[in-house]
Amino acid sequence: MAVTVVGSMAFDAIETPFGRSNKIVGGAATYISWSASNFTRPVQVISVVGGDFPVEELDILNARGVLTEGVQIKKDRKSFFWSGKYHMDMNTRDTLETQLNVLGDFEPVVPSGYQGAEILMLGNLSPAVQLSVIEQLNVRPKLIVLDTMNFWMETALSDLEKVLQKVDVLLVNDSEARQLSGQYSLVRAAKEIMKMGPRYLVIKKGEHGALLFYEDHVFFAPALPIEEVFDPTGAGDTFAGGFVGYLDHTKDFSFEGMKSAIIIGSAIASFCVEKFGTSRLKELNRQMIDERVQQFVELVNFDISLV
Amino acid sequence: MAVTVVGSMAFDAIETPFGRSNKIVGGAATYISWSASNFTRPVQVISVVGGDFPVEELDILNARGVLTEGVQIKKDRKSFFWSGKYHMDMNTRDTLETQLNVLGDFEPVVPSGYQGAEILMLGNLSPAVQLSVIEQLNVRPKLIVLDTMNFWMETALSDLEKVLQKVDVLLVNDSEARQLSGQYSLVRAAKEIMKMGPRYLVIKKGEHGALLFYEDHVFFAPALPIEEVFDPTGAGDTFAGGFVGYLDHTKDFSFEGMKSAIIIGSAIASFCVEKFGTSRLKELNRQMIDERVQQFVELVNFDISLV
Repeated sequence: MAVTVVGSMAFDAIETPFGRSNKIVGGAATYISWSASNFTRPVQVISVVGGDFPVEELDILNARGVLTEGVQIKKDRKSFFWSGKYHMDMNTRDTLETQLNVLGDFEPVVPSGYQGAEILMLGNLSPAVQLSVIEQLNVRPKLIVLDTMNFWMETALSDLEKVLQKVDVLLVNDSEARQLSGQYSLVRAAKEIMKMGPRYLVIKKGEHGALLFYEDHVFFAPALPIEEVFDPTGAGDTFAGGFVGYLDHTKDFSFEGMKSAIIIGSAIASFCVEKFGTSRLKELNRQMIDERVQQFVELVNFDISLV
Repeated sequence: MAVTVVGSMAFDAIETPFGRSNKIVGGAATYISWSASNFTRPVQVISVVGGDFPVEELDILNARGVLTEGVQIKKDRKSFFWSGKYHMDMNTRDTLETQLNVLGDFEPVVPSGYQGAEILMLGNLSPAVQLSVIEQLNVRPKLIVLDTMNFWMETALSDLEKVLQKVDVLLVNDSEARQLSGQYSLVRAAKEIMKMGPRYLVIKKGEHGALLFYEDHVFFAPALPIEEVFDPTGAGDTFAGGFVGYLDHTKDFSFEGMKSAIIIGSAIASFCVEKFGTSRLKELNRQMIDERVQQFVELVNFDISLV
């Protein structure tokens, strides 16, 4: 069993109402790998970095069972850089600066050793790159999960629609679901989006939890109310990583299986926001994750007997 | 058993992205009474209206077991009027016009027949009015529930603090909880607010559900994702009405009892938003409510066995 992950490995500089980080290691594939490798190995990464990316970061991922043969290193160029600022409503952020650098002309190559992975996790990237990875696979993975964002809906909708037709699960946030579907009601938005390809739709609502839609069913997972909401960067990717990592472990791709995977994703994401960057994810162990999952169970547990 | 409700009975004119209402009957006490009377009787209302308020509205409430002896009718004056506009994000709204009219100098009088109610529901009104009602009661109710809003935090904080010291449960939305406590994290906000008096804090998050805090415990109830989010006016009051109505029925004021009451409140509130004003509430019966409660159970039900 294996999960192949495509996504950025990059530098971020983050400002929140509670502090400001230096240029730190981030990127969708980084967060997804840290998170997924709690549940399954290997996690096989496809990405691109510049000569400025610290090799130690790849080394510690390798030591966790994350393979990085598919990470291209462009020695004479710079890694993708993003800088952003969060306001008191941590669900919204302003981009201060984006330097595409090596990501601008990224042509992903799937190493032959990566073939046969049962799950493909397409982290947020250009739909053309995501499509290229799908097309390089000899056998279609049992599950393809797609993360994307409003930027691609605005600049590459046609390519995005092609990717949507090829995936099983789409992860987007609530405003993106509304934008993609043209529907305000999330129930209606989900119906429209599921016509575009994905059988499952996960709508991420940040501190307000996540919704899972499948046929006529809907499941809601809350976000854990936590004292230290410090830096939301990477929380969505961490969620995605826990989601696919756990699914690769259980191999239960049914609606019930997806529910559990969402709880796991939410539990790990709730750690991510407690410190800058990947710091908190590096401290995790399975017992800590189990305890937090138990908190989710208690959070939504009720027993009602109508009168 | 009885619930005494204090709040406005009024006219609203509402504009949403989906339509615009004429001047229709609204007000906190109206919504609370419609909602609570599904579960308990009598509901005893204390309010004030002008000669323009349709007596038929009081008659149909009376027929449901809602007592209106405490509703003062000022024949030569006009009822409170509010007009507002919702944007695509139905969680925020702009007030277009407020005419206090009879509410401007409202001096509540508790009829002697209302004495002895076990629950007092203080709907959103001036803290001075809320305080006056508490002081007119011969015996302290077993449960006092307070709804308030940011306006009173800004204009009558000292009075509001006095009321807070006398109540068991506070209902506010998330931004109000942050404003009242000066804390961004809702967990920290809850701790601060519970020091001000209430043992229980319910943070209403509109379409994102509600949180219940009690000592070190927290419970989350989602809002039901619904296709027709038509008009959110009164949803918070409808929630409060279901909450106190159900509590008066069960008499279980424990944390577990509060959880159930929040699910009931959420279920009824999910009907309220489907049509303008109280229209949808007037169509409800217990079977419809039961079915929706069952949808809540399914919405959050999951069975996770960590690996």
